[in-house]
Amino acid sequence: MGMFSVSGKQQVCQLFFVQVILIVLMGALMTYGPEPDANSLKNHGQTGDHGRKHVKKPDTDPLRVYPNVHVMIWIGFGFLMTFLRRYGQSAIGLTFLLGAILIQVAMICEGVTNFQIDNASPLSLKSLLNADVAVATPLISMGALLGKTTYMQLVFMGIFELIMFTVNKYVGEHLLMAVDAGDSMFVHAFGAYFGLAVSFVFGMKDKPKEHNLEGASYNSDIFAMIGTVFLWLFWPSFNSAALQGDDQQRAIINTLLSISSSCVIAFATSALVSKDNKFNMVHVQNSTLAGGVAIGTAAGMMCKPVGALAVGALAGLLSVLGYKYLTPLIQKRLRIHDTCGVHNLHGMPGVLGGIFGALMAGLATEASYDYSLYEIFPARAPNSEAKLAEMRDNYGISAGSNRTAGEQAGYQLLVLVITVGIAIVSGLVTGLMMRMSLCSLISEEQKFDDEANWELEEEATQESKIKEGNSYGGDQLPMAHI
Amino acid sequence: MGMFSVSGKQQVCQLFFVQVILIVLMGALMTYGPEPDANSLKNHGQTGDHGRKHVKKPDTDPLRVYPNVHVMIWIGFGFLMTFLRRYGQSAIGLTFLLGAILIQVAMICEGVTNFQIDNASPLSLKSLLNADVAVATPLISMGALLGKTTYMQLVFMGIFELIMFTVNKYVGEHLLMAVDAGDSMFVHAFGAYFGLAVSFVFGMKDKPKEHNLEGASYNSDIFAMIGTVFLWLFWPSFNSAALQGDDQQRAIINTLLSISSSCVIAFATSALVSKDNKFNMVHVQNSTLAGGVAIGTAAGMMCKPVGALAVGALAGLLSVLGYKYLTPLIQKRLRIHDTCGVHNLHGMPGVLGGIFGALMAGLATEASYDYSLYEIFPARAPNSEAKLAEMRDNYGISAGSNRTAGEQAGYQLLVLVITVGIAIVSGLVTGLMMRMSLCSLISEEQKFDDEANWELEEEATQESKIKEGNSYGGDQLPMAHI
Amino acid sequence: MGMFSVSGKQQVCQLFFVQVILIVLMGALMTYGPEPDANSLKNHGQTGDHGRKHVKKPDTDPLRVYPNVHVMIWIGFGFLMTFLRRYGQSAIGLTFLLGAILIQVAMICEGVTNFQIDNASPLSLKSLLNADVAVATPLISMGALLGKTTYMQLVFMGIFELIMFTVNKYVGEHLLMAVDAGDSMFVHAFGAYFGLAVSFVFGMKDKPKEHNLEGASYNSDIFAMIGTVFLWLFWPSFNSAALQGDDQQRAIINTLLSISSSCVIAFATSALVSKDNKFNMVHVQNSTLAGGVAIGTAAGMMCKPVGALAVGALAGLLSVLGYKYLTPLIQKRLRIHDTCGVHNLHGMPGVLGGIFGALMAGLATEASYDYSLYEIFPARAPNSEAKLAEMRDNYGISAGSNRTAGEQAGYQLLVLVITVGIAIVSGLVTGLMMRMSLCSLISEEQKFDDEANWELEEEATQESKIKEGNSYGGDQLPMAHI
Repeated sequence: MGMFSVSGKQQVCQLFFVQVILIVLMGALMTYGPEPDANSLKNHGQTGDHGRKHVKKPDTDPLRVYPNVHVMIWIGFGFLMTFLRRYGQSAIGLTFLLGAILIQVAMICEGVTNFQIDNASPLSLKSLLNADVAVATPLISMGALLGKTTYMQLVFMGIFELIMFTVNKYVGEHLLMAVDAGDSMFVHAFGAYFGLAVSFVFGMKDKPKEHNLEGASYNSDIFAMIGTVFLWLFWPSFNSAALQGDDQQRAIINTLLSISSSCVIAFATSALVSKDNKFNMVHVQNSTLAGGVAIGTAAGMMCKPVGALAVGALAGLLSVLGYKYLTPLIQKRLRIHDTCGVHNLHGMPGVLGGIFGALMAGLATEASYDYSLYEIFPARAPNSEAKLAEMRDNYGISAGSNRTAGEQAGYQLLVLVITVGIAIVSGLVTGLMMRMSLCSLISEEQKFDDEANWELEEEATQESKIKEGNSYGGDQLPMAHI
Repeated sequence: MGMFSVSGKQQVCQLFFVQVILIVLMGALMTYGPEPDANSLKNHGQTGDHGRKHVKKPDTDPLRVYPNVHVMIWIGFGFLMTFLRRYGQSAIGLTFLLGAILIQVAMICEGVTNFQIDNASPLSLKSLLNADVAVATPLISMGALLGKTTYMQLVFMGIFELIMFTVNKYVGEHLLMAVDAGDSMFVHAFGAYFGLAVSFVFGMKDKPKEHNLEGASYNSDIFAMIGTVFLWLFWPSFNSAALQGDDQQRAIINTLLSISSSCVIAFATSALVSKDNKFNMVHVQNSTLAGGVAIGTAAGMMCKPVGALAVGALAGLLSVLGYKYLTPLIQKRLRIHDTCGVHNLHGMPGVLGGIFGALMAGLATEASYDYSLYEIFPARAPNSEAKLAEMRDNYGISAGSNRTAGEQAGYQLLVLVITVGIAIVSGLVTGLMMRMSLCSLISEEQKFDDEANWELEEEATQESKIKEGNSYGGDQLPMAHI
Repeated sequence: MGMFSVSGKQQVCQLFFVQVILIVLMGALMTYGPEPDANSLKNHGQTGDHGRKHVKKPDTDPLRVYPNVHVMIWIGFGFLMTFLRRYGQSAIGLTFLLGAILIQVAMICEGVTNFQIDNASPLSLKSLLNADVAVATPLISMGALLGKTTYMQLVFMGIFELIMFTVNKYVGEHLLMAVDAGDSMFVHAFGAYFGLAVSFVFGMKDKPKEHNLEGASYNSDIFAMIGTVFLWLFWPSFNSAALQGDDQQRAIINTLLSISSSCVIAFATSALVSKDNKFNMVHVQNSTLAGGVAIGTAAGMMCKPVGALAVGALAGLLSVLGYKYLTPLIQKRLRIHDTCGVHNLHGMPGVLGGIFGALMAGLATEASYDYSLYEIFPARAPNSEAKLAEMRDNYGISAGSNRTAGEQAGYQLLVLVITVGIAIVSGLVTGLMMRMSLCSLISEEQKFDDEANWELEEEATQESKIKEGNSYGGDQLPMAHI
């Protein structure tokens, strides 16, 4: 305990240090972009109506979807993880802390990338939206580790992960020109396999054991549903955040269909595999969302309503079966403990989403998309002046790489493989660093327990012990009770 | 128990079957509408700014109100029903499942209606918004039955109800040209009386009894307030969802005023009729919202701020008095058990809303509305070429039926009567079907208990029994406790 | 008890009376503004496309930010205050009641102000947004008094406070032309010091004592986090609500940066000053938000990303230190009891925000703002025709008072001082009135207890007593338990 309180002080200093570094970096690198800049000429429209200020609305107004994505990250992820009986305050509290740090890190990562390209690091509403989406990645990894780390381990993991996320997205999106509108690959698969790799490193040292606090209570399960339902509701905003016009509308419709279908099939599969054919709260809290992940890559494609429903149903099925059969297996055989089952909600559905996206890319023709084909898959646009001229002049389409449908599908699969590969390798490295001296480790006793992080009131602590006593037949506590 | 687990398996198969049928129907019937279609010519604006894609924004941007209505349905209705001490997981879980099925059903129902009219079943953001609103109807009915049915009974009820809802709305809105912007009649009154009719059929067989789990706990009452407050906040979006321009703004203002006034009067009436003049949570959770229902039909009309406040106050008063005096009476005399008191939140305020809408329609003149009169009440537009020409050319008003204010008011009342009639008759038929063999029945012991639906953790189950023991003086449990 | 039930009836009558008066005043004073008015000529655009109705969108579309601010007031403030173990239903319920009354009062106050200026009191979406923002002020004051008053005392306090708020804002914004985009001064500092002044009056009579119900429970702390996180998420909407174009975007970016930084520093400082370097829930629930308050006045100014981060960090630090060291001190020395610690979340950060705003105003030059300078600080615009002509013709800038940067900074500070002054004086007067006969007082035993306001179910009451027994060593209850 004494040792812990020493390292507690170290952790505090590290936390202050991280925020100070962020302030310094932000000061050195970031400026307002042209849209939010008061001193930007284009913000002073010299229009006919005598100087009323007219900022030209960006094609897609980020203010429309931004608040919804914002709610998903903090309320959605935060409350989804409150399902643990005695780790609810940490779940929502650490999501809050981590999110507040990592959104700054994500802005700086994007800023550095833009600096690479444009020699400037402007901030705009679009940056905030991108940063929100990026933050989801380490929060997914956190789900695999929930209750087993100190908060500073999560902070360092998140920072390293966001750097690798940025590199991977740059490679996949800019260099290899793969399409991943709803980030099935870049966010979900990456976050899940990164987190599982870290957990694997932890299991190499300490074989995962049964823990008496690793379960839900009646109320904690209801708190978690706040997260589930908000995620479910706003997933269409997440998947359509990067799109515009008809693409955006299609992504909203496809996502709603897919996630509705995965919700129904997750309920049905849960009842099929559970005792007495009842529903299981873990499945309902998580697998109902798998359709949102699985439609991600293809969200803006012409997969037809029936295609969206089918991929959602498959994701819901896979996800529940994963919770039931696969998670116990990988814990036993691979020693990978996965607290929230992120492999079932983000890992497998993310891979499914990547494959489904490749399939839809392979089926995409000018007949079904018209010239939109070259907006959705820019690499498929012609690169010869002859073919391009009319499209460019009339529809603003830029020169591409003249890829065929099959080539695009191949690149999609390549990027999926690269993403999972980078996630696993960088997750292993990060896990090894986390086990080294830069952060303190958490003892078996402190796992899944809010007491490790929070100054709990006596009442709450007692209540916890009484409950524990009730559930696990401890006989010393009713005595203390009387 | 054995019998239950058999029928449990049947239920699971039915649930899978329902989703498969929905996928098949969606595949056979539904396509992307022109706005979300990549291959739609109008999505490629050949405009002066060299091909930047310009989807013409629909008059009312559904993305502005859609997320709010979405939150109302799943968070609002879902959490509002978590007030029961041991049925919170079912309340939020079954709302989630039911909503995910029924939003698909609602899209198909609308698709079939559009097919009838236009020979095509396109999906658009508008369809999603309409489907969300439609789903509210069976969720209201579910409120009357909460805790007394299996989940498949609710699913079948919801599907039948949405079909009848679609028929009724088609008759009322398209054929009889009644106005019901906020759906006081089509959603609220219909949903309430349909649910009460089903409950009546249940009561014919099993007289409603006192049940020891039919009450709230301290925390369940707070969970329910999440639902109440989100419903209250976003009700203006619900009532204005179908409107545009000044009509929409008026509907937002009127609804906020009405629901504020009903909130205050519900609190006051609750304290007036309760012991020691304290507030009652059931009233606060429900009757505070009655003003949103009651202003629904007239939301877009020129009822003046004071009119909105007055109808809201009346609705709040009626609703609390209904909970206090009418609900016990109809349970005793008519054997209609109404778990959430939907008669007081949706039934009576819905009828009040229909009547208030008829009154306002009867008072509407060209003097107070100008030509907007013919946009809000299309049936009142002239049908003679002479009168119509200028309005049509300058304001896009189509030929109507030349109704007088009195005639329009009469039609409004006629539609109210038809709505309640169809709801009751189809509710009775649905109730009789639900009692037949196609779904299993729930035993008295399983009522209002999450154990009927959920694989609860041991801890939670024990806790439940202990609490039950505490409250009802059972003496066997403290023994097991020690 | 008997006496309480008598005054309970009086309270009910007062509550009915307040709503009746509001209906009468609204009827006498308020009309639909031109935008929501059906009979307004400008709503019938006689445009080229044959009469399609085109309401000119107001520069800033209130529908974009309005729902977010709405959520902050009722969900944010309401749930933030549920942290008390046995006062959660009152916290969320009284916020609900108070909000519903005061939003009407705020509309009437604004209406009267407009009547003063324009001889008309129109309602528009902008009025609703302004009213929402205004309602935050008395809810902040309520935080200082939570658990210590009757509900009618809060209602009367809120009404008086809104009147004084309106006067103060009129003086500060219209007469002295200070800028306070995010209302650090007008809402946060005013609300906090008003509430503390009322609490001071209460402490003059009854010295604040330790109370056994003044603490959190495990679940109440999680409920409170619903409020915290929604406030945190939507604070950028609050601070940018009154702005447009690039100013609005800058306010969103600045607020997100500032509140992220205050979140991280609040966590770190909490761990620094708490036992064993753990986090404290009170700090996390409140001080994490201090950056939103502190950036308020300067939200729309060019304070650079690094400036926003720095002021947020300072606010988070100040706020936690305030909770730890200052609150106990002012309770002991000044007898000011501050239930939610509003001095630390709204008082000090509000003053900091006012000062930071003055500093930024003092640094604002035409070089860094271009002509936007005169839009953000209208009083700095030239008043001589010679200089003004080009700006007016091309950018719509009106004549100002030709203030220098230093003068503007001085006025900013003056308005801060006036605001705190008016808040304290009018708070003292209101406190004295509240102690007089027009409202009943609450006994020490009823404090912080939902039983004072709610007809609790027996189960809930028993549970409460058992918990109390557990925590405070009461020995009679475990007996009843067995």
